[in-house]
Amino acid sequence: MKKAFETLRWAGTTDGVLELLDQRKLPGRMEYLACRTPEQLFEAIITLAVRGAPAIGVAAAYGICLACRQLPDPSPAAETLKTVLKTADYLAQSRPTAVNLFWALNRMTRTAQQVLAANPTCTTGQLKEALLAEAKTIETEDRRMCDAIGRHGQQFIPDNAAILTHCNAGALATAGIGTALAPIYTAHAQGKKIRVYMDETRPLLQGARLTAWELAQSGIEAVLQCDNMSASLMKSRKIDAILVGADRIAANGDTANKIGTLALSILARHFGVPFYVAAPSSTFDLSIPDGTGIPIEHRRDDEVTHVAGSRMAPEQIGVYNPAFDVTDHADITAIITEHGVIERPCTDTIRHCLRQDNP
Amino acid sequence: MKKAFETLRWAGTTDGVLELLDQRKLPGRMEYLACRTPEQLFEAIITLAVRGAPAIGVAAAYGICLACRQLPDPSPAAETLKTVLKTADYLAQSRPTAVNLFWALNRMTRTAQQVLAANPTCTTGQLKEALLAEAKTIETEDRRMCDAIGRHGQQFIPDNAAILTHCNAGALATAGIGTALAPIYTAHAQGKKIRVYMDETRPLLQGARLTAWELAQSGIEAVLQCDNMSASLMKSRKIDAILVGADRIAANGDTANKIGTLALSILARHFGVPFYVAAPSSTFDLSIPDGTGIPIEHRRDDEVTHVAGSRMAPEQIGVYNPAFDVTDHADITAIITEHGVIERPCTDTIRHCLRQDNP
Repeated sequence: MKKAFETLRWAGTTDGVLELLDQRKLPGRMEYLACRTPEQLFEAIITLAVRGAPAIGVAAAYGICLACRQLPDPSPAAETLKTVLKTADYLAQSRPTAVNLFWALNRMTRTAQQVLAANPTCTTGQLKEALLAEAKTIETEDRRMCDAIGRHGQQFIPDNAAILTHCNAGALATAGIGTALAPIYTAHAQGKKIRVYMDETRPLLQGARLTAWELAQSGIEAVLQCDNMSASLMKSRKIDAILVGADRIAANGDTANKIGTLALSILARHFGVPFYVAAPSSTFDLSIPDGTGIPIEHRRDDEVTHVAGSRMAPEQIGVYNPAFDVTDHADITAIITEHGVIERPCTDTIRHCLRQDNP
Repeated sequence: MKKAFETLRWAGTTDGVLELLDQRKLPGRMEYLACRTPEQLFEAIITLAVRGAPAIGVAAAYGICLACRQLPDPSPAAETLKTVLKTADYLAQSRPTAVNLFWALNRMTRTAQQVLAANPTCTTGQLKEALLAEAKTIETEDRRMCDAIGRHGQQFIPDNAAILTHCNAGALATAGIGTALAPIYTAHAQGKKIRVYMDETRPLLQGARLTAWELAQSGIEAVLQCDNMSASLMKSRKIDAILVGADRIAANGDTANKIGTLALSILARHFGVPFYVAAPSSTFDLSIPDGTGIPIEHRRDDEVTHVAGSRMAPEQIGVYNPAFDVTDHADITAIITEHGVIERPCTDTIRHCLRQDNP
C-alpha cells in the first residue's frame, strides 16, 4: 500500500545519506533531517526524530552504511568489518527496549561477516554495496510486513468500527503503512467507515502530534483524547477494539509497548473490549521467556515537568518516567504479525506461528 | 490544622471582596484574584482560578455576599431575596458536576429565606450580615471537615507508605487542608514517612501544577508521573494505597471525580491496591440513586489540543474532553468523610453514616 509521505529514505549510492522525516517537528513542520554519520543517527534516535520500533530498525541498518561511507576506499576488509561491528555496538546503545534495533543491527553484521567469509579479498566497495543492499532489503521487507499485517488485521475492523490506539504505531513508526494502523488503513481502503480514538500519549504526545497528523492526511475520522480518558470511552461503550504496536514481545507473548499500554489492556479486559497487538516477527525476542526480562528505558525528568518548553511543575519534586510498560500476554486477545494472527498468544502459539523464522 | 497559604479569603465587612489564590498561575506565581461581583466569580470558577469541589462551594457562598454588596442600603427585603435567588441560579450554571456548589448555594438561599421569614421587616444590612455569617460558617465547617477527614483517614497511611493521588484534592481544593491530602498531611504531622506519587492529571495538569506545588511546600516527598504511568507503578508494587477526592457521590457510592479516576479504581482492583475516596458529606447527592444520573461536564477542545499556549495536535481532528468520570462504588475500598469511614460503600452504609445530615 502506498503512503502519503516517506518516514525515512536513503538518498544516493553507497556514499548517500539517510534522510529522516523529523518527527520532533511534527505536526507543525514537515522537514527531513539528513544523517551523514552514525553519531547524527544516534542523536536522531535518542531525541526521537525517528521512533517506532520498526522504523528504528530500518534506520539503524542504514546507520551501518553511514559508518562505511566514511571509510577510505580501498580499506582492508578486516578494517571495514571492525567498523561495522563497532558501529553496531554503538547504535545498540541508543535505546534499550525496542528489539528491532538489535535485530536489524544483527542482520547487518551477519551480512558483513558472510560476505567476508565467502570472499575474504572482497573490496570495501563490494562490502558497502552488500550492506546497502541488505539495508534496502530490510526496508522493503518492512513495507511488505506492514501490508501483510494490514491484510491479516483488517478482519478485526468491522464497518462503522470505533478503534482506540495509543502512541503512534502508524506509517511514521515504520517504512511502510504501520503496524497497529495498518489494519485500519487497509479496512479504510476497502471502503469501511472507521473512527479512530487516539490517546495523546504523554509525555511526548506521539498520539496528538503524530497519529493525529497521519490520520488527518488519510481522511479517516480521528478523535483525540488524553490518556486518562480511555476508561470513560470504554465505559460508555464507544470502543469496539483496541489496536497497539509493540517494542519487544517475549517468548510467552508479554509485550513491551509505549507507557500506558498496560493500563489499556487491563481496562479492555474489564470492559470486555478486544485488545490487539500488531507487530512484525522482528519484534519478538524468543530469548526472553517472559516480560520480566525486558529492559525498560527510563527517560529524562524534563519530558514530564516541561511541555512545549514551558515548565509545568515546581522544581523540588521527583519524577517517574519509564518510556514503556509490559502488558501480560493473558490480556492480549491476539497478536497480528506478517505471518498471520496469533490468537490467545502464549509460548506455544507464538512458536508455532514464528517457526518459519525460528525453526 | 494550619495550612501554609489561604486558598480563598473574604477581605472586609459585608462590603468586602472575595480574594482567590489564582490557581491558573500556579506553580509559577502566587497571586490573589479579587472578585467584587458574582460575574467575576463565575469567570473565576469556569476558568478554574478556583477549583476543587469544596473550595467551589465556599467561594459560591461568598458569591451571594458579592451580589448583595451591590444592593443599595436600604433596599426592600423582597428585592434582596430576589437578588440572592437570582445570583444562586446564575452561579449554579458555572459548573455542572461538583455538587458542593449547589449545596452551598442552597444553604445561602435558605438562610436568606429563614431570616426574612423570622423578621419580614429586617434591613438589607441585617440580611447581608446574616448571609456573610453563613458563608463564614460554611468556610469554617469546611476547614473542620478537612481536619476530621485527616483524623479518620490517617489510619490508612502506614509509616513508609507510598500513596498515589490524582488531580488536586488538597489544601488548594478546600478552605482547609484538603480531602484526599488531609490524611497524608495528618500522618506526616504524626511523624510518619510518606512518599506521594502524583498523577499529572491531563489536560489541565492539576497534579503537576497544584498538588506538586503544595506538597513541595509541606516537606513531604513527592514524585510526579504522567497519568498513563500509574499502572506501571502499581505493577511494580510501588503503591500501598490510592487516595482521591470527589466531585459528587451518588446515594449508592458511585463517585464522580476528575477524569482518570475511573481507570485508577479498575487498576487498583486488578493489582490489589486499596482505593480510598475522601470527601465531605456535602459531596453526597442522595437524590441520585447511582452514578448514571451524575451530569458530566465536557470542556473545550483546546484544553487537549494546546498545552501552555502551544498547539500540539493538528487542526483537522475531533476531541473528547470530559472533565470527570464515574467510579463504581464496588471498586472503592472506603469513603472517608468528616463523620467517619464508610467501608464497602453502598446505599445502606452511606445512609447509615450520613443519617445525622439526612434523617
